[in-house]
Amino acid sequence: MHRTKVRVATDVLDANETIARANRADFDRAGVRVVNLMSAPGAGKTMLLERVLGGGLGDGLLDGLGEVRVGVLEGDVQGSFDADRLSLLHVPVTQLNTDPGFGGECHLDANMVRSALGAMALEEIDLLVIENVGNLVCPAEFRVGEDRRAMISSVTEGEDKPLKYPLMFRTCELVVVNKIDLLPHLDFSLERFLANLDQVNPGAEHMLLSARTGEGVEAFADWLARVAQTTPAPARAEAEPA
Amino acid sequence: MHRTKVRVATDVLDANETIARANRADFDRAGVRVVNLMSAPGAGKTMLLERVLGGGLGDGLLDGLGEVRVGVLEGDVQGSFDADRLSLLHVPVTQLNTDPGFGGECHLDANMVRSALGAMALEEIDLLVIENVGNLVCPAEFRVGEDRRAMISSVTEGEDKPLKYPLMFRTCELVVVNKIDLLPHLDFSLERFLANLDQVNPGAEHMLLSARTGEGVEAFADWLARVAQTTPAPARAEAEPA
Repeated sequence: MHRTKVRVATDVLDANETIARANRADFDRAGVRVVNLMSAPGAGKTMLLERVLGGGLGDGLLDGLGEVRVGVLEGDVQGSFDADRLSLLHVPVTQLNTDPGFGGECHLDANMVRSALGAMALEEIDLLVIENVGNLVCPAEFRVGEDRRAMISSVTEGEDKPLKYPLMFRTCELVVVNKIDLLPHLDFSLERFLANLDQVNPGAEHMLLSARTGEGVEAFADWLARVAQTTPAPARAEAEPA
Repeated sequence: MHRTKVRVATDVLDANETIARANRADFDRAGVRVVNLMSAPGAGKTMLLERVLGGGLGDGLLDGLGEVRVGVLEGDVQGSFDADRLSLLHVPVTQLNTDPGFGGECHLDANMVRSALGAMALEEIDLLVIENVGNLVCPAEFRVGEDRRAMISSVTEGEDKPLKYPLMFRTCELVVVNKIDLLPHLDFSLERFLANLDQVNPGAEHMLLSARTGEGVEAFADWLARVAQTTPAPARAEAEPA
């Protein structure tokens, strides 16, 4: 039973890698860089995107994204609540619901993203942000064709999360620590959190911010702009045949 | 592809139901009532259990559980951080790691719980609390043999969660709204959250509390005690053959 389960899982992940490479090739051809943005439910993915795509706090503070044209692919089990919020900012948003699958898939996979490619006007954007389903486990297992992985960990979730969900924290190039405006009201040691992060992903890039107050969000806009300006390397590890 | 996926999923869930019924029969024979406790990562499952099992805030406030003997089954992808915390309270705790499965399963299923039955001294407890993996999607799809389902939704996660994860909110008999001590520092409308909850699960029982300050946790202890004192109905919907 167990052995079979592992073999089926391996097959599923192999197939996923193949389709992820095909997605990546299509994104590369269109000159679009892709960020896979992940977090637990309610960690603030959509609010952070609202901040950086909506021009900050209405005071023109944010210019980190400059002329970069951003599109968003919204992954949700059901509904289009986040897509509706983001489309108010006049950003091209495509909604992907995972509901028709396994009674509601808990993650995006490469094939779901592939099914949405036709609906996205890739020639009109430079950077695609894929907002994954809120979950700290399975999204980390499925590449979807992204150039970079970023995750948001909210300080309200506790210091132990890197140790409890190590794959997620290990496979991301950037860890955003959100909701720092709540730090004075929590028993949360930032030092211990960062030590835990360092234990599972030594030297991982991280930034502290509050999507709610706007503090520190400029750094995330800058990071997105840097990703948008990278040239895809001709041979990347995840683009190699298995 | 899609049709096949749905069929495989249906088979998996059918097999799970069969094993869940077997678990339930074993729990019934042992006279143990079972609560499946679910939430997103960091919503406060372990801290709430610490409060109600550890006697509240050290001031003997909590007596809701009375003489009920409680055991805990801890579900985690990796590690035993929560089990270690709870075992300090001299409560029998069994750790179940989902890691050997599908690169880290994002939920407990009935077969995993079944594999742990031998390790639990069921004759020494009246109530088993199963702390599921932190995730708002898949745990709701897999019954594990429980009598009741409870979930924790933290106010820091936002008002929209019942609408975004409807299956989870719909299949629970109790919704615990945690971290209410943070309400003054958030843009969270409790009224809107409860309206969203009512939309997916009309009339669902809910309670407001703060595991951190101890406010309202007595009600959760009372609820657990009531579950412990119920007599299993001779024919329950989920105990019927499919």
